[in-house]
Amino acid sequence: MNQTAPALAESPTRRRLLEVGRRLFAQRGFAGTSVRALTREAGTNLGAVTYHFGSKEGLYGAVLAACLEPLRRRLEEIGRQNLPALDGLEAMVRGFFRHLAENPDMPRFMVQELVLGEHPHPEVVETIRAVLGALTAVLRKGQKEGSIVGGDPVLQALTVLSQPVYLSVVPAVLRKGGAGWEGIPRPHSSPEEHGVSILRRALASGRAP
Amino acid sequence: MNQTAPALAESPTRRRLLEVGRRLFAQRGFAGTSVRALTREAGTNLGAVTYHFGSKEGLYGAVLAACLEPLRRRLEEIGRQNLPALDGLEAMVRGFFRHLAENPDMPRFMVQELVLGEHPHPEVVETIRAVLGALTAVLRKGQKEGSIVGGDPVLQALTVLSQPVYLSVVPAVLRKGGAGWEGIPRPHSSPEEHGVSILRRALASGRAP
Repeated sequence: MNQTAPALAESPTRRRLLEVGRRLFAQRGFAGTSVRALTREAGTNLGAVTYHFGSKEGLYGAVLAACLEPLRRRLEEIGRQNLPALDGLEAMVRGFFRHLAENPDMPRFMVQELVLGEHPHPEVVETIRAVLGALTAVLRKGQKEGSIVGGDPVLQALTVLSQPVYLSVVPAVLRKGGAGWEGIPRPHSSPEEHGVSILRRALASGRAP
Repeated sequence: MNQTAPALAESPTRRRLLEVGRRLFAQRGFAGTSVRALTREAGTNLGAVTYHFGSKEGLYGAVLAACLEPLRRRLEEIGRQNLPALDGLEAMVRGFFRHLAENPDMPRFMVQELVLGEHPHPEVVETIRAVLGALTAVLRKGQKEGSIVGGDPVLQALTVLSQPVYLSVVPAVLRKGGAGWEGIPRPHSSPEEHGVSILRRALASGRAP
């Protein structure tokens, strides 16, 4: 383990490094962000990253944790509420939409880690484990109770997950627009309400009332 | 317009530059790929990119076209067949799955262009226009005929699109696995069959027989 300074919430240098790290890592990726750039932007001395986080890797892990831990906690909390399966799924989907609205840089981290990178960071793997675990648990429960249609619960979980992810990322891309985007259709209603109702249609067994 | 050499299919240098360009641009992105690296890997002289494609931008556009044009043609062809709406959607979804299986680098280009980049290449914009155009046309037709449930056809199109994209990319990530991935659930059945049947459930109006 690295020897690092205690994570005092009130340390302004530590907080500034986290903010700057989050912005630069999201923009340029881990490899494209130097300790020099981080400390220059944060207005600290060159040793501050090592002092507060042990290394650039340590800062990166802290940035990912700040982005991903609240999502894991949110889903686990919903899981513990033990709602009827379709309601539990809806709560998780809405929680995911909210998390993406509050963390618009999350898709950049995820595609850098999972689509472009080779070895995802443990924080990312842990998030996949928690998200797929929470979703498949509810789906299996619903299948057993008869409220959710049969099928591979992992693929069903990916379909559930695809809605908040895809319906948050793509409309944001379409909204940016630019030259050449004239005439490209854009959504006119709430992606979240659409995602929730389409998933209920897709997954409700039809046997439940 | 750039003056470029005629696109002779039989030029081995041109073909080699396209192959190497596709591999390097997919791995490193447009900015991370130098003309020097391209010509060295292709075993050509430094002027070959300019001679055959006008510029690095020209080669990049040709690489994107090779990756995306077959998808646009496939979807337009299905659109012309004028199938019943749900069958037309199913054919498009299966065409998209097949295209992604044949072009496993496509997601890397799309996330570089749409999630990480600022100004997507005209080839990418044209593909979004064609894909959303083909899907929304079928969805509108199905809504008019009563075979597709009501709702914003653009959001419905994004839900349709999300299935081949998400269900191709994520299982590939999960299959790669690695240290720390033990116990993460993986799909055990066909993502394509799951995607098709879940979309039919989600979009069929229930009024149709």
